[in-house]
Amino acid sequence: MTLTSRIETALSDAVGRIHGKGAPPGFAAAMHHAVLPGGAWVRPQLCLSVAQACGDDLPEMSDAAAAAIELIHCASLVHDDLPCFDDADLRRGKPSVHRAFGEPLAVLAGDALIVMAFEVLARAARGEPVRAAGLTLALARATGMPGGICAGQAWESEAEIDLAAYHRAKTGSLFVAATRMGAIAAGADPEPWTELGARIGEAFQVADDLHDVLHGEDDLGKPCGQDAAHGRPNAVADFGVAGAIRRLEDILGGAIASIPACPGEAALCAVVRKQAERLTPVAPARSVA
Amino acid sequence: MTLTSRIETALSDAVGRIHGKGAPPGFAAAMHHAVLPGGAWVRPQLCLSVAQACGDDLPEMSDAAAAAIELIHCASLVHDDLPCFDDADLRRGKPSVHRAFGEPLAVLAGDALIVMAFEVLARAARGEPVRAAGLTLALARATGMPGGICAGQAWESEAEIDLAAYHRAKTGSLFVAATRMGAIAAGADPEPWTELGARIGEAFQVADDLHDVLHGEDDLGKPCGQDAAHGRPNAVADFGVAGAIRRLEDILGGAIASIPACPGEAALCAVVRKQAERLTPVAPARSVA
Repeated sequence: MTLTSRIETALSDAVGRIHGKGAPPGFAAAMHHAVLPGGAWVRPQLCLSVAQACGDDLPEMSDAAAAAIELIHCASLVHDDLPCFDDADLRRGKPSVHRAFGEPLAVLAGDALIVMAFEVLARAARGEPVRAAGLTLALARATGMPGGICAGQAWESEAEIDLAAYHRAKTGSLFVAATRMGAIAAGADPEPWTELGARIGEAFQVADDLHDVLHGEDDLGKPCGQDAAHGRPNAVADFGVAGAIRRLEDILGGAIASIPACPGEAALCAVVRKQAERLTPVAPARSVA
Repeated sequence: MTLTSRIETALSDAVGRIHGKGAPPGFAAAMHHAVLPGGAWVRPQLCLSVAQACGDDLPEMSDAAAAAIELIHCASLVHDDLPCFDDADLRRGKPSVHRAFGEPLAVLAGDALIVMAFEVLARAARGEPVRAAGLTLALARATGMPGGICAGQAWESEAEIDLAAYHRAKTGSLFVAATRMGAIAAGADPEPWTELGARIGEAFQVADDLHDVLHGEDDLGKPCGQDAAHGRPNAVADFGVAGAIRRLEDILGGAIASIPACPGEAALCAVVRKQAERLTPVAPARSVA
């Protein structure tokens, strides 16, 4: 089974449970819309890749970890698109949830997707409750306060912004959770995997900043120029386009170098290189490795 | 230690972790505002009362369960008060979170409080990970889809409303979670405790409907007449004031009758009777027992 088919199965199973008798049907449709069909599934693929590198002895646990991370990511997209944040019309080439289903169901869909993420982990706990508790803590840390993606988004509402804390929380935290949770799901020590997640998160932030400046709406399936429109910090504004691309390549090189020695090391390096190619469309892919 | 001091300590500990270095300070203040000082803490008190009736052999686990339930309740209040729902200015006699801190931080505060609830349970898992996983599942079921409080709130956006499912999800689910989680935290079977939670939830719904019609804003610390203003279903509209009061008394009598035989049965009956007196200010309290 490929990584993406594992992720698709895990997400479909989770979303399948919300339909049916006693469930508000419009709300179920809104949640489904927010999750499937998915985006690039970068975070859950990273999680599963690390789990495989660590032996993946309980694939159901790894699948739960990957699905939970993606559900939190989907929840954050639904809420980030709300009128009081980006007020975005498009997401993944479709109308955003609040455009398609209204603002009340969009607020609730984000809430219920957060809940679903933790429920998926708790359901996988039957086999190994200690690992599941570790996964729950790692996911909570990546999502809430003081350093998760909610905190990251909240920095944009503060009078003074701590830039390092902002980037670490807004983008980095869920990538760090992806690598750490992949290790935890496979019964491995998460510590050596933190740097890989942090560096890939940093690379994504810079790549997103580049996309935001260089690409149009059609290409991304979401509005462009949001950072400039909202006065948000941006690597391109700091370093220029060429500087930001060099920075991206440095970060990705460091990410690959940080991968701990393990049986699945080569396969994981290949996965990260592939993501790197995806991230740097304007730079020659070979310069990344 | 009284129930309320246990709850206050557990909530203060949880909220205390969001402040400090690296945390967006305005956001931390918004979350704090949403949780402390608290309301009547009916749900967490019910949870701890059931835990005590079941022996309360791991008080830290019971405290975590009670705090988690209250955090979910606080999150739901913050989001229910948003402009796209009730657009409420007041909550617990203070400005609502979005009035005090703005809509973006109110959306994020609700999100991060949901996360905090699951984090509190995961942190308590160290001692007994199997119980913690059971608590997480029970809380997720009471909060998300298809039958939790998110689903309950979502019914108000559906073209056709399933009234039984609406009430069960919107008010009942968190009371059912309170009694079931009290039992689970103490290592007891949650099944015999489901009816007590369901009946108290039903009583609260009717009492809330009565308050909504009979009382003014000053008394409740929140706006009144919201059901009529939003065209929502209401027991007073269905049965009249006198009929709704009779119904409330019937439900509370049934709640007390449903309490399973257990060492702490008498103490729990006293707790429920006290809540009943609180709930029925317009009816003689003795008629409830």
